[in-house]
Order: sequence, then structure tokens, then C-alpha cells
Amino acid sequence: MDVNSSSAGSGQLAVTDRTRHRRLRENGSTARADLDAVLAAGFICHLGVVLDGVPMVVPTVYGATARTLYLHGSVASRSLAADPEATVCVTVTHVDALVLARSVFEHSVNYRCAMIYGTPRTVTDAEEKLEGLRVLTEQAAPGQWDYARRPNRKELAATTLLALPLDEASVKISAGPPEDGDGPDAELGLWAGELPVRLTWAPPVPDPQLAPGITAPPHITALLGRTD
Amino acid sequence: MDVNSSSAGSGQLAVTDRTRHRRLRENGSTARADLDAVLAAGFICHLGVVLDGVPMVVPTVYGATARTLYLHGSVASRSLAADPEATVCVTVTHVDALVLARSVFEHSVNYRCAMIYGTPRTVTDAEEKLEGLRVLTEQAAPGQWDYARRPNRKELAATTLLALPLDEASVKISAGPPEDGDGPDAELGLWAGELPVRLTWAPPVPDPQLAPGITAPPHITALLGRTD
Repeated sequence: MDVNSSSAGSGQLAVTDRTRHRRLRENGSTARADLDAVLAAGFICHLGVVLDGVPMVVPTVYGATARTLYLHGSVASRSLAADPEATVCVTVTHVDALVLARSVFEHSVNYRCAMIYGTPRTVTDAEEKLEGLRVLTEQAAPGQWDYARRPNRKELAATTLLALPLDEASVKISAGPPEDGDGPDAELGLWAGELPVRLTWAPPVPDPQLAPGITAPPHITALLGRTD
Repeated sequence: MDVNSSSAGSGQLAVTDRTRHRRLRENGSTARADLDAVLAAGFICHLGVVLDGVPMVVPTVYGATARTLYLHGSVASRSLAADPEATVCVTVTHVDALVLARSVFEHSVNYRCAMIYGTPRTVTDAEEKLEGLRVLTEQAAPGQWDYARRPNRKELAATTLLALPLDEASVKISAGPPEDGDGPDAELGLWAGELPVRLTWAPPVPDPQLAPGITAPPHITALLGRTD
């Protein structure tokens, strides 16, 4: 790993061969605040591992602290079992808008994306495992950790939790209108602009087995209408 | 690749070592209709490649026909340049709901996910390239191919398009309420159920450079309120 450590200040991510932005440089960010914001805006990542030389990409839930990404470990553990030093890639993507230009060639997507590289560590310490699961749970549904029954010793033992350091990461942010508004295609008289995508929570659907009279708690109903 | 070709009928996907469902067997599907439905419901995939032995997962747009997934090729082409026979993994995920159980341990996510393995082919034939770009464009915004200016010869030459056969794929679908409604935790009196996630289009945002009086065409405004 070729870390250019001179660029690694407290607010800047270190730039490595893997995280150096090769395309669309204008969209690349090495600000830790941008990484934190992309991670805070979601709860699903795509985890890439190599198994028998072949890439495997699986969606999984995550929870982020300032320095660590916690992941459920069932898939990555197959990769780690084969090679405990194996590097994985975790990608978190938020699609913000379709960019509809005058020409098909200038069509694009506005998005925010974080890619994190590293070797995950299997969390074995019971206290850290509980804290990691709290972070995972709160990432998707804040308030749920205090509401639901927490894992007991047997459940903790049955859970594989991985910790990935947030040391080597790359953030790309693409935003703004199409780029052919001042070119010859603007004369075509076609509509152009952004078509935003919104991810929202819909009203909760009670478990059919729920006893009558139990209503969704405020921390869940508060999510309604929240836009990520 | 260990293809169990005896299971590969017209409506069933072949099962290979990579696509055999190891976990949550109840959620695995080898029905081609399920694959088609997952692909039809989106336009962003996560492409996994191996570069220097390390996985790299990048989001990119795709377009699907019955037999082929078309992808923009800039990232995968780096992997293919190193090894033209390299296998990639393309994953398309739709998150449908958070599953909030009585216990943290039983929390999960309802989702639909397709994983496709294969070696992409660089599309060189001009006619197929144009058709692939049409499929890509129509996947996200149906009607836009006929509306926008199509790629000219120079733009076609500047576009790298990849074709991935839809031969080796795995589909997982997780749905339904939490599973602790008939266990001891049901006595806790806690709310449990699903919190659905909805992906919707918001009203189009015109390009600030748009000439006055040009309104968004019907095929774009028709997307509003559509739920994927």
C-alpha cells in the first residue's frame, strides 16, 4: 500500500494507489467530513471480497463510528477464513438524481459514494461486540437499541461481527445539472435537468402476530417522511 | 465453473458452485422470472472486479435484456485489460423494508438481490453498441432514447460498453414479518413489524440554463410517484 501520509491530516483521508481518483477528479473528495456524511446517510453497503480469485459482491448492513465500520460478518468471514490478511472493499452509494441532458452521451447520475478498503478484524471482545451491534442497530433505526431486547450471551456468541478501520477510503460526489446547456445541443429545444430520487420510509406495517393495542413507538413513527 | 446443467431449463437459472445458495436457502431463487424482475426494478448495480488481487466495488448504471446485461465499461475495462478472461460480479439490490423484531438478534432487512457472475465482453459492433446504449438509457428513463439526441459516431467511439451474459446468476428475496412473533419475546409487549423503504422520483429540476418555456416531457413527468 502506497500511502501518501503527508496528506493524512485529521480532516483529510490518506490517499493511496487504490483511493487516488482516476476519473472525474472534480468529484473526488478526501475530506473526512464527506466520508462521515456519506456513511451517516445510509445503512446498507456492498461488500466486495475475493473468493478463489473471483470477486463476490454482497449487500449487508453496516454501522459507522468515527474510526470503524462494523459489518455483519457471515460472508466476509468466508473470505477471511481463506486469508486472514485479505483486503475487502466496502462501497456505500446514494443515488441522488438522474441527470437528463439534451444528448444521450451527456446523461449521467448524481450520486454520493464512499469506497473503503481494508482488512476486517473479527470482533471477539464481548463489550466491543455489544457496542458494535448497538452502532449497527442505531444506524438504521435510531432508538431501537434502547427499545428492543438486547442480545443475550448465546445470541452474541452466534453473531459474527467484523470491524473495518476507516483509514483508507475514497469519496466521490457528483452533483449539478447536465453539462450540455451551453453547447450546440442547447439549440435543440429539448428539456434537460435533474430527476431527483428520494428514499423515504413508508408507514410501518405491524407484524400480523402483534397483540392488539401495541402501537409503533415514537422513534419509529418519527422516521416517516424523513428523506435520506 | 461447475455448472449443473441438468437444472438449466428455459425458466431456471443454472446452479453453479458460486450461485448455489449457502445461507437462507428459503430465500434463494433460481427462477429466471425472479432475476428479470429484480433487474427490471432498478438501474444501478454494484460491479465487483479484482485489481492486483484486491476487490473493487463500484456503482454503475446498467441496462438489461433477456440475455444480456449492458454496463458502462470504464472501470471494468481496467480489470479486463489486465485479464480478458477475468470474472466479474454484478450485484443489484433493492431494499424493501427494515424488519424490526422484539429482539435485536432477530432484526433483519427485507430485500431483493441479484448477483451475476461472468466475463464481460467489450461491445465493438456499432449496431450492438447503439442498441446497448438504448437499453441502458431506457432502463432508467423510458422514453428518453427517442427524446434526446442519440450518440453520433464520435460519441459512440468514445464510449466503452460491456456486455455480460445473464447465464450465471443468483437471486435472493427476503420478505415478510419478523420471526419472533410466536416465541417468548412476544410476551415483552414490544411493537414489531416492517418499516418499508420507498424509492420515488421527485419533481424534475430544470437545468438553470434551460430556455424559458421548455417543459419536462410527458415520459419524464409520468415517472413521478412511480415506486420502484
